[in-house]
Amino acid sequence: MSGRGRPPDPDLEARVHAAALELYGEVGWAGFSFDVLARRARVGKAALYNRWGSKEKLIVDALTAGLQQDPFDTQSGSLRTQLIRMAAGTLNGYLTTRGLVYLRAQVEARVYPELFGQALERFQRERIKVGRAIVLNAIARGELPPGTSPALVLDAVAGMLTNHFLSTPINQMPALIARKDKYVEETVDFVLSRVDYRAPEQDA
Amino acid sequence: MSGRGRPPDPDLEARVHAAALELYGEVGWAGFSFDVLARRARVGKAALYNRWGSKEKLIVDALTAGLQQDPFDTQSGSLRTQLIRMAAGTLNGYLTTRGLVYLRAQVEARVYPELFGQALERFQRERIKVGRAIVLNAIARGELPPGTSPALVLDAVAGMLTNHFLSTPINQMPALIARKDKYVEETVDFVLSRVDYRAPEQDA
Repeated sequence: MSGRGRPPDPDLEARVHAAALELYGEVGWAGFSFDVLARRARVGKAALYNRWGSKEKLIVDALTAGLQQDPFDTQSGSLRTQLIRMAAGTLNGYLTTRGLVYLRAQVEARVYPELFGQALERFQRERIKVGRAIVLNAIARGELPPGTSPALVLDAVAGMLTNHFLSTPINQMPALIARKDKYVEETVDFVLSRVDYRAPEQDA
Repeated sequence: MSGRGRPPDPDLEARVHAAALELYGEVGWAGFSFDVLARRARVGKAALYNRWGSKEKLIVDALTAGLQQDPFDTQSGSLRTQLIRMAAGTLNGYLTTRGLVYLRAQVEARVYPELFGQALERFQRERIKVGRAIVLNAIARGELPPGTSPALVLDAVAGMLTNHFLSTPINQMPALIARKDKYVEETVDFVLSRVDYRAPEQDA
């Protein structure tokens, strides 16, 4: 309670993070400037410099905060139920700012590895950890043959969705959105029918 | 042979296209400027304005010229041979400027559909056409059951590769490159073993 100067701005960090991810998703690293960001986040440029020092530090901070694996219950439900939940999350994610940010950062990590590599790698490791747990738990419950490769199942599901999303022409996007739940189910069922999936009785 | 003014520059278009794709791959649309491009392509800015009028026209022109489906022999070889050839082309492509440009344009088409939609859509249609021909010829030769979905086979192969490439942390890229031929074969064999592929006798 100093009573001096401007009142503290408790939302500053969250507001700047959100604006930073939105801006980055739209324009990428080349268009990412404190000028534009300050305007969008309704803060002074000085506040950005004071808090983050550089736009490099800010984007890494915003990505680290923004790209967090959502909590995922890897215990309840059959493998099919869990994969559909995970895949729907992935496809829905692509339709949001976060998904755009993730795709952009994956592409730009090839150009600026020191900048995007670290924040991305942590997120990718978390995703892989959840995915592995889903598949390994299913093997333990007898829904998949022992020795089934988690990477193969996960690459197949996530890859088909990513490819489908990226290769759909923009003008066909409404059609994709209209039948996305069905597409997610078909993709999961295609992969599962190819890895000797045995549904538990309540699911069969 | 007017003898007046500067000599014509027969390589101008090719040089500008190559520099434009390289620049776009690195920085995306937000960083794409005539200033930087003129420097890189070793031409005057005036030449760029004279020939293309705007950077929008230039990037569409460069993408249209650069993203062309390579000729692909859809007739000779088994389905497995053809898919391995196609998949290796896709994965190798991701390691080049063209692949980076393609990924970037796919992401930026979500943000600037009017700019990237058209050039991309033509390329995507060409790719899909070649992929469909590969699968439909294989059905006609009896290597796949009638009614096998080309989209499913192609999404599975291309999707697994794209996902594998995008989700590999940068520091593990050398390992990916070292075993990429093996990964391509494994991916194709995984998909084929799941769609009741019957290899022709000389391939079995």
